[in-house]
Amino acid sequence: MREQLDILKNENERLLSILQISQSFTAELDLELLLKKISDVVRSVLRADRCTVFLYDSERNELWSKVATGIKNEIRFSAELGLAGYTARTGEVLNIPDAYADTRFNPEIDKKTGYRTETVLTIPLRDEKNEITGVFQVLNKKNGQFTEEDEKLLGALASTASTAIENSKSYEDLHRSFISFIETLSTTLDSRDYITSGHSRRVTLYSVQIAQLMKLNRNELDLIRFAALLHDIGKLGIPEMVLFKNKRLSEDEYEIIKRHASLSHTILNKIHFQKHLKDLPKIAASHHEKIDGKGYPKGLKGDQIPLGGKIIAVCDVFDALTSRKQYSDRLDIEKVIEILESETGTSFEPYVVYQFKNIPLNILIEILEFGHHEELIESDLRFLSKFTMKDLLEIRRTKNRTAEQRRLDETFIRYYSRKYRK
Amino acid sequence: MREQLDILKNENERLLSILQISQSFTAELDLELLLKKISDVVRSVLRADRCTVFLYDSERNELWSKVATGIKNEIRFSAELGLAGYTARTGEVLNIPDAYADTRFNPEIDKKTGYRTETVLTIPLRDEKNEITGVFQVLNKKNGQFTEEDEKLLGALASTASTAIENSKSYEDLHRSFISFIETLSTTLDSRDYITSGHSRRVTLYSVQIAQLMKLNRNELDLIRFAALLHDIGKLGIPEMVLFKNKRLSEDEYEIIKRHASLSHTILNKIHFQKHLKDLPKIAASHHEKIDGKGYPKGLKGDQIPLGGKIIAVCDVFDALTSRKQYSDRLDIEKVIEILESETGTSFEPYVVYQFKNIPLNILIEILEFGHHEELIESDLRFLSKFTMKDLLEIRRTKNRTAEQRRLDETFIRYYSRKYRK
Repeated sequence: MREQLDILKNENERLLSILQISQSFTAELDLELLLKKISDVVRSVLRADRCTVFLYDSERNELWSKVATGIKNEIRFSAELGLAGYTARTGEVLNIPDAYADTRFNPEIDKKTGYRTETVLTIPLRDEKNEITGVFQVLNKKNGQFTEEDEKLLGALASTASTAIENSKSYEDLHRSFISFIETLSTTLDSRDYITSGHSRRVTLYSVQIAQLMKLNRNELDLIRFAALLHDIGKLGIPEMVLFKNKRLSEDEYEIIKRHASLSHTILNKIHFQKHLKDLPKIAASHHEKIDGKGYPKGLKGDQIPLGGKIIAVCDVFDALTSRKQYSDRLDIEKVIEILESETGTSFEPYVVYQFKNIPLNILIEILEFGHHEELIESDLRFLSKFTMKDLLEIRRTKNRTAEQRRLDETFIRYYSRKYRK
Repeated sequence: MREQLDILKNENERLLSILQISQSFTAELDLELLLKKISDVVRSVLRADRCTVFLYDSERNELWSKVATGIKNEIRFSAELGLAGYTARTGEVLNIPDAYADTRFNPEIDKKTGYRTETVLTIPLRDEKNEITGVFQVLNKKNGQFTEEDEKLLGALASTASTAIENSKSYEDLHRSFISFIETLSTTLDSRDYITSGHSRRVTLYSVQIAQLMKLNRNELDLIRFAALLHDIGKLGIPEMVLFKNKRLSEDEYEIIKRHASLSHTILNKIHFQKHLKDLPKIAASHHEKIDGKGYPKGLKGDQIPLGGKIIAVCDVFDALTSRKQYSDRLDIEKVIEILESETGTSFEPYVVYQFKNIPLNILIEILEFGHHEELIESDLRFLSKFTMKDLLEIRRTKNRTAEQRRLDETFIRYYSRKYRK
């Protein structure tokens, strides 16, 4: 009887912890964070050294994961391989005391990473329709072997993790759909005219770089990304006859064009955005404001302009200055920076321009050439990644340059000034 | 000892059932279905007559719910009212043996519904930050009173339900954002020209009506809704000079305009849609196909044209024929239907036209007048709701009409033919 009592007590504790874990899983909709959380919990509950949650991609018959302690990138491999693959294909639970003694084990990953797999426990994840959606793989139990108790516990966690994963996949899928819709729209609008083709996408890429250098959080980054993609959406309300006019604009026509900023606000304000994107219309509408109050549409000054608006303003002008016009090459880079600097403190927020100059040059080149589909040589990019625009400007103002300094200048300019072949 | 054993056994069963319930909750991302599921489970587990999950709207200090067995609409009331309101404000669990003896009880809902509340158990729902997000209200325990055991059980279910509700609210919020983005874009594109203002929105409303009459499921409805909203997005790629030309188009210009259908496909095909929307580009691109193969862009025949495309085709033409041109009234309704009928079997799928004529007339008028912000008299709409276009046509072809038949004709035409004031 005392024995029965102990069993029940244990069982009770087990259920209670599963229930708690289950709630912590389902509270996470971000797939990457969720997989990390699941893997951490399983590792600690089973007292194992590693745990990977592999997701099964049935279309490609592959297993993949975003999480793998010790390896940074996404892992992806054929479901025909290894113990995890075996479980994905058969649905069988595997409890292996010595991996290298099992012919199904695939030692390739160990070889690559230098890890030494010993004990392995794999168990399938299933969705509501009982179809296999992934595999839990737990490695190297800390003391001895994985027990039957471990299998049972992992089974219970697998079913609760599986639901959480399905939810977060649905959320991510919808989110991806939302982003790709906005990106496609933005690209389509810009491509109506040769001059603006790719403009919003490039402005977005620059803006996100600056936001990252400023260490803004994920939600703030999202906000700036979407505002940048949509900053010119108001141009939909400007007649093409004026918008795409090749000749010099009259003053009236210029006034009509200027309306696009407030039209962006009008259009975006009709959209229900998620809470963290609530300021999007305001940011998008303020990309022509200047910190001295001489911008439009509102003539906002300094801190009245949202940070996102200040960031997009700098990137907007930089892209306009560096994009190739139909019959001419890019403006000289020093001239471009000179213009930016001359307006810093009047049009532009100094801290934004400062961070703009801190964007690594490989990324700057990649953005400048975005959508041009011309080759960027890997070794050049690696070399450029060690420098920023600030470095480049300093070097160009130096008289006696080292070989490396000359190489930097030459490499950057080679890409910056190359002719665009349509 | 035996007693202890029984307690543990009970506790075990309780935990196991909470765990199962918890998983069934988290598997549901649709808020309406989730609230219904939670309410059903709680009612059955607590052996009570009713359960409502109220969500707390902190901005408006109101409680609201989509679910209420026996009452169809959304309930919404001040959180200052009733036992649920008390729990929302204080976080206190209430276990009331006789509602009418408690001064905090609000008898208004009973009065409206004819229900008789006796025993009540209310318990707060809290989010991760421990803030109150809603209230469980369980009414009329089947035998006797709610016990302490019931309170405990409900508490456990509340915390698991709360996470599921937060997830589904996040998903719904993102979904709403996605829809409102597409609707706003669609409206903005159409409103570039007076002639097409509101066109895609109306085509969407008609299409959804037909899809509902065809009893298509939720995913199919979604697919047709989005395809209809976006069917003309390809017009973004047609120069406004041609697109908005007031005069007669040359043959070349007409060929340019016709490109919009395949351009819709090109643009939409770049977007990552959720699985159930995968056919959206194809449907949107096929709204000018004709079942005899004489349409464009592909000259598809009969069943080669997706159902959604066939539905949008009919609604697209109906809206073009019935929209008010700048200097003229609407085309006579019999003439409109005559045109539709003359092309049924050549341009249009007969079953689609058949269902179009089954749209209730109140809805048809509401869609025709969508965006015109002119008054529609409630009693007229109620009267029209009993008839369809099919009825109207029959009546108009009848010689000796009853008073009701005359009223139907007169009422419909009064709205259909009224002058549009800008």
